[in-house]
Amino acid sequence: MRYSKLFGKTVRNAPKDAVLESHKLLFRAGFIRDLSAGRYLLTPLGFKVFEKIIKIIDEEMQTIGGQRVSSPTLHPLELWQATHRDVAFGEGLMRVKDRRGAWFAIGATAEAVMTEFVKKFSPSWRDLPFVIYQFSQKFRDELRARGGLVRVREFLMKDSYSFAADEESSLKCYWDHFHAYEKIAERLGIKVIPVEADSGALGGDFCHEFITPCDFGEDTILTCECGYRANKEKAEFVRENINLDEEEKPLEIVSQPEWVESMDDNVKHYNLPKSRFLKNVVYKTAKGKIIIAVIRGDLEVNEVKLTKVVNEGELIPATDEDLIKMETKPGWVHCWGHQALYIGDLSLQTVKNFIGGQKEKTTDCVNVNYGRDFTCEVLADITEAHEGYFCGKCRKGKLKEIRGIEFGHVFKYDDFYSKAMRATFTDKNGKEKFLQMGAYGIGIERAMAIIVEAHRDEKGIIWPKSVAPYQVHLVNLNPKSEIRNPKLNADEVYEKLQASGIEVLYDDREEVSAGEKFVDADLIGIPVRLVVSERNGDKIEYKGRDKKESELLDLEGVVERLKA
Amino acid sequence: MRYSKLFGKTVRNAPKDAVLESHKLLFRAGFIRDLSAGRYLLTPLGFKVFEKIIKIIDEEMQTIGGQRVSSPTLHPLELWQATHRDVAFGEGLMRVKDRRGAWFAIGATAEAVMTEFVKKFSPSWRDLPFVIYQFSQKFRDELRARGGLVRVREFLMKDSYSFAADEESSLKCYWDHFHAYEKIAERLGIKVIPVEADSGALGGDFCHEFITPCDFGEDTILTCECGYRANKEKAEFVRENINLDEEEKPLEIVSQPEWVESMDDNVKHYNLPKSRFLKNVVYKTAKGKIIIAVIRGDLEVNEVKLTKVVNEGELIPATDEDLIKMETKPGWVHCWGHQALYIGDLSLQTVKNFIGGQKEKTTDCVNVNYGRDFTCEVLADITEAHEGYFCGKCRKGKLKEIRGIEFGHVFKYDDFYSKAMRATFTDKNGKEKFLQMGAYGIGIERAMAIIVEAHRDEKGIIWPKSVAPYQVHLVNLNPKSEIRNPKLNADEVYEKLQASGIEVLYDDREEVSAGEKFVDADLIGIPVRLVVSERNGDKIEYKGRDKKESELLDLEGVVERLKA
Repeated sequence: MRYSKLFGKTVRNAPKDAVLESHKLLFRAGFIRDLSAGRYLLTPLGFKVFEKIIKIIDEEMQTIGGQRVSSPTLHPLELWQATHRDVAFGEGLMRVKDRRGAWFAIGATAEAVMTEFVKKFSPSWRDLPFVIYQFSQKFRDELRARGGLVRVREFLMKDSYSFAADEESSLKCYWDHFHAYEKIAERLGIKVIPVEADSGALGGDFCHEFITPCDFGEDTILTCECGYRANKEKAEFVRENINLDEEEKPLEIVSQPEWVESMDDNVKHYNLPKSRFLKNVVYKTAKGKIIIAVIRGDLEVNEVKLTKVVNEGELIPATDEDLIKMETKPGWVHCWGHQALYIGDLSLQTVKNFIGGQKEKTTDCVNVNYGRDFTCEVLADITEAHEGYFCGKCRKGKLKEIRGIEFGHVFKYDDFYSKAMRATFTDKNGKEKFLQMGAYGIGIERAMAIIVEAHRDEKGIIWPKSVAPYQVHLVNLNPKSEIRNPKLNADEVYEKLQASGIEVLYDDREEVSAGEKFVDADLIGIPVRLVVSERNGDKIEYKGRDKKESELLDLEGVVERLKA
Repeated sequence: MRYSKLFGKTVRNAPKDAVLESHKLLFRAGFIRDLSAGRYLLTPLGFKVFEKIIKIIDEEMQTIGGQRVSSPTLHPLELWQATHRDVAFGEGLMRVKDRRGAWFAIGATAEAVMTEFVKKFSPSWRDLPFVIYQFSQKFRDELRARGGLVRVREFLMKDSYSFAADEESSLKCYWDHFHAYEKIAERLGIKVIPVEADSGALGGDFCHEFITPCDFGEDTILTCECGYRANKEKAEFVRENINLDEEEKPLEIVSQPEWVESMDDNVKHYNLPKSRFLKNVVYKTAKGKIIIAVIRGDLEVNEVKLTKVVNEGELIPATDEDLIKMETKPGWVHCWGHQALYIGDLSLQTVKNFIGGQKEKTTDCVNVNYGRDFTCEVLADITEAHEGYFCGKCRKGKLKEIRGIEFGHVFKYDDFYSKAMRATFTDKNGKEKFLQMGAYGIGIERAMAIIVEAHRDEKGIIWPKSVAPYQVHLVNLNPKSEIRNPKLNADEVYEKLQASGIEVLYDDREEVSAGEKFVDADLIGIPVRLVVSERNGDKIEYKGRDKKESELLDLEGVVERLKA
């Protein structure tokens, strides 16, 4: 490709609101533009990288026996409603009504569609297991779209779905994907850490996220020396016993100054650590139902864990107005007695004689004991894990926090979708059984951003060979015909390289200085730069983008090196 | 691929509402399923064909220098509004509001998006011309979705866009595409006739449709021996003079029985041919504005032509209620005097002393002459062409009608979009000028249907080699291990063919009879069928899907034949 004719050239400045280096570099080097927040256009350079990422993923999906299919973007809303995924996705799922009044979800994922697809062929045990996959545009109406290609509102996703007759073969599909994802990451030049994760709005109970460590990532994972790795939404940890050897004392209503409202006020007033207090955090569901999370004072509620326990879709933090409607206010919420669903954290069982729980204008109570004085409808793990907590698996090591970006996600659903949608197969005895399902996703835009985060320097991108838009960046330093290098014609070098099957980006611009061409080559980041100039005579300067030194080779030498 | 493990097997019956053979066959053979009306799922077999069609189109786009890009599906609605395309597309364009209240169009085509894309890089004359293209999902909220893959609500489209500095280089891009489309059709095994067409809601003034002749097609084209070819919405023809030598007589109000309302009533009452009467056809715009089309009694209004002349978006036929509001009724509409925009057809100039135009309870008028007694705001070609009319180009030949399906469409827009969107480039003298634009589209689902319409027999599909899902369909007639052919192991044949780089669909099913396997092979329509059976010993039966006779070859002979 002649750079002079390439649509989408480099620019000096990145957008002012760009935070991640991958966003700045991909913009400046001319790979992407935003059409609106979170919706990106890919230039010809950007699409070249995209194609290579897609090809690698496609090959690995074929290797594990995946069969490529395609499905519509607009899904009949009933398919989402069958498993209440419309509620679980909340406002993140876009909906649209057609001119005949039928409602559609704009595909955010395709579990239900694929389940419906499979139903249409009434499979028998002979057909199972199989994996179908597609590359298709997905839509998530994110409240905030930030970080360039990392969190977007519309993106291409490789999503695959496995259908199996039993647990064993379903798990085989799961681990096939797990290993394929490791392989894909390796081929893309990305380091990933598979971690146990929460499946969130997608349903199911067993899943892994593949996280790329990155200081600016949105995800936090917790790791232990014992090998335990989980994301913050899933990580289990040991809640230390605070004072379980203490004897239970009788509950007492005590007088308390009105100013004691927050946890800090309490610590000050009683001169005791936060862990001795009860804390309430109030949420509401989309339908307005009040949820009160009760937790030990030194711990934080993790909304994802809580959402999963409540299982009624998105939770929204209650506002002061909500509290007024409950006839209370911040700091005054009671651990019992409100018209609400109470969810208690496991930490309520680690303290004797809690303080708090019934704050009024001039009183509160002390010596509150869970089980004796109050109980919650559900007692579960709703606490956010943090660095330094004891690992929930080995119960000895201390958890460490790593920030990162989610590269891929694998889910084992069992019959979560097939039961709700009556998706069955006929077994050897002619009996109808529910299909065992798994789903597996990689976002392509995000993969591109992750690659750039991992492969760059202060001058620009350094593409791994496997996904570079071109193999070589050929720079002609004397493109004007009147001063053309008499010993080596760059146009001919371009033609010959292409004839050898090498993908060449050829900077043939006449109006641009040598310095600018070098700056652009470093910014665009193609792995090898070749320079044809009068100074080099009949030799070509060969330089790896990641190397400091260059070499002079003849054309044959260049081709040989590139083909090696 | 082992057929036993393929997702999406054959079935006996087509859906009851299927009309086109391509729909029935693609369904029965297991290439497609509908998720909802007009929105299709592609099975692995269907996607294989899709991939091959895409590859052929992609190669031809590369050959003419196209640069592949990608753009979001949701377009900020403002981009559509800039050229009033939102109005022109009417309800066919789906719209959706995001959670922050921003309106988006769900991409029906991408002219405005691509214009915006190009603007973001402020091109100069040095960058021009260039062609960018994509394969992306398009959405049209069709009132009726029928004919399987021919008229769908959602489809993959190859859409390309050319941007040029002047008329000449813009036209070069146009004809490059024109010839590329002929080449693509040829490679897909499709016969196409390029015809002059109307650009409809897309804007612009110069375009060609590529029509595949098909008796069940939705489009009608008119051809003349002189070479003129146009679709019904565009075709120009000569309006014969009816009685221009007659002298203009004075307009007269005459009494007329109340029952004389329709054209047939008039013919009966006056005993004169339809061509002597005035006819009014009433429409309204989306905003409720009344349009009255005035035309010679023997001609029909073509809504597309009329819509284009009115240029206020979709036109809807007026209802009886609309006429009541106008204080008239069917057959009583006047050729003048209503609160309406009057559009007259050129045929008003071919008759002297028209009858009609002012029907009241007991009167009408005669000797009405256009120009003298009434005029319309616009006089234009709004008549539907028909077989037998005189060609508008040579004015001698008679037009012939052919039915067909639109395979592709090329548009020359000049500065229709760039002017409205202020999309400019810097010319050699540093002056800002409007970009000259063209756009070019091929729908992939429809291409697949057209191929099947053209390549089939009573037994099933007969795929052209270029797009067949697999090159050979290998049938094992003795798959059960206990009765396996001792001289030739079909599993090994399968492996060896694959190792030779041949794409094989291998029917290894144990539970299916030989007869059923043959029926399935004919239905699926892979170009070559190979049979391994005990009867054939160490030879393989080789039969072309389009041939009656088979041959016995050894494996080497088969490979040689396939590689030829």
